[in-house]
Amino acid sequence: MSRVRVHNFSISLDGFATGEPQTLDAPFGHAGQRLHEWMFATRFWRSGAGEDGGGEGVDNAFAERHGPGIGAEIMGRRKFWPYSGPWTGVGTDEEWRGWWGPNPPFHTPVFVLTHHPRPSIELEGGTVFHFIDATPKEALAQAREAAGGLDVRIGGGPTIVRDFLAADLIDLLHVVQVPIVLGRGVRLWDGLEGLDERYAIEATPSPSGVTHLTFTRREPRA
Amino acid sequence: MSRVRVHNFSISLDGFATGEPQTLDAPFGHAGQRLHEWMFATRFWRSGAGEDGGGEGVDNAFAERHGPGIGAEIMGRRKFWPYSGPWTGVGTDEEWRGWWGPNPPFHTPVFVLTHHPRPSIELEGGTVFHFIDATPKEALAQAREAAGGLDVRIGGGPTIVRDFLAADLIDLLHVVQVPIVLGRGVRLWDGLEGLDERYAIEATPSPSGVTHLTFTRREPRA
Repeated sequence: MSRVRVHNFSISLDGFATGEPQTLDAPFGHAGQRLHEWMFATRFWRSGAGEDGGGEGVDNAFAERHGPGIGAEIMGRRKFWPYSGPWTGVGTDEEWRGWWGPNPPFHTPVFVLTHHPRPSIELEGGTVFHFIDATPKEALAQAREAAGGLDVRIGGGPTIVRDFLAADLIDLLHVVQVPIVLGRGVRLWDGLEGLDERYAIEATPSPSGVTHLTFTRREPRA
Repeated sequence: MSRVRVHNFSISLDGFATGEPQTLDAPFGHAGQRLHEWMFATRFWRSGAGEDGGGEGVDNAFAERHGPGIGAEIMGRRKFWPYSGPWTGVGTDEEWRGWWGPNPPFHTPVFVLTHHPRPSIELEGGTVFHFIDATPKEALAQAREAAGGLDVRIGGGPTIVRDFLAADLIDLLHVVQVPIVLGRGVRLWDGLEGLDERYAIEATPSPSGVTHLTFTRREPRA
């Protein structure tokens, strides 16, 4: 069966995957770009941005696993758009098509979990955003069908990754621990007591200062 | 000036330095011994227990830094005795002399921070427990005087380490991140936003599975 994977999911030392408040100007709140600077320096990121160069060490080796073998992504509403609630009304943008421009880096169907479904959006390069109101299990069934036998990536944010971990639906979790203390924001680990019993956990430090943590499921899912 | 150091301070992936509830039978609550198994396997620990053997790798190299050069320790009340409140009354033990037997591993004055001072206790091997009601800064002044020019160790628990970090009184912080998710207990990192700005942070993984994090102050304290 295809696997369910999380890649390049960055958290602070104190476990926050985003700062606060999340806005259009600051999608990671007071964290700014600090959680992802390690990635911006990789060849993976720079080639995606049409640039030459970039590191080819351990950060890049992990980062490059993001795309290959993935047939669909599931993301939370606040990864797509930083606010909650209906899409219409003051402070919203019904024309919003995500942060990623006309050719987003997904190149697959992307299922955006929201309590406010809206029509799908098809962009260049194979990315189609579908907006669905579903449980993690239901969303995964849809994504798996759309993935055509390939793996499904859980793209975040922290609430979504946590919900899928709590529902025991993740096979591989790659977390990047960045040596900063954010103090506030949204935590990844809340409510996951005993998670370590289900995974083999490996820590790999990088010369960049981050530590890559991989959680590999010990037993196949039932 | 003598330095203020924290050594071998173990936390879970989600940042808890103890589980809950803390009792005489389970001083680390539901965490049991899982936060410290890495240390029990070291030569440092086993020689302290009068046993032969034990690992001499990176875990031991860090662990052995605990004693040399230290002239006094400051610890929280709940490291000495797992309950809060007055020493007298139901469920307390006025004869309690700590967990560590007649010859505790401190061999220096130890200042126990409590809102309920009591007479000092002198044990074998140079350990004297003093019970003081003081701010971190006041406690450090007393400990420094007792240390006779040597360094002062902040022995934990998490509330005490956090208070001393918040008061900007720590020069070296050695944290051992253990790959377990406790889900509940007492967190180390709360309220320390921006802590990384004051320290150079290095992550060293161990074959045992833990990751040693060292926080070395960038600038000497004023």
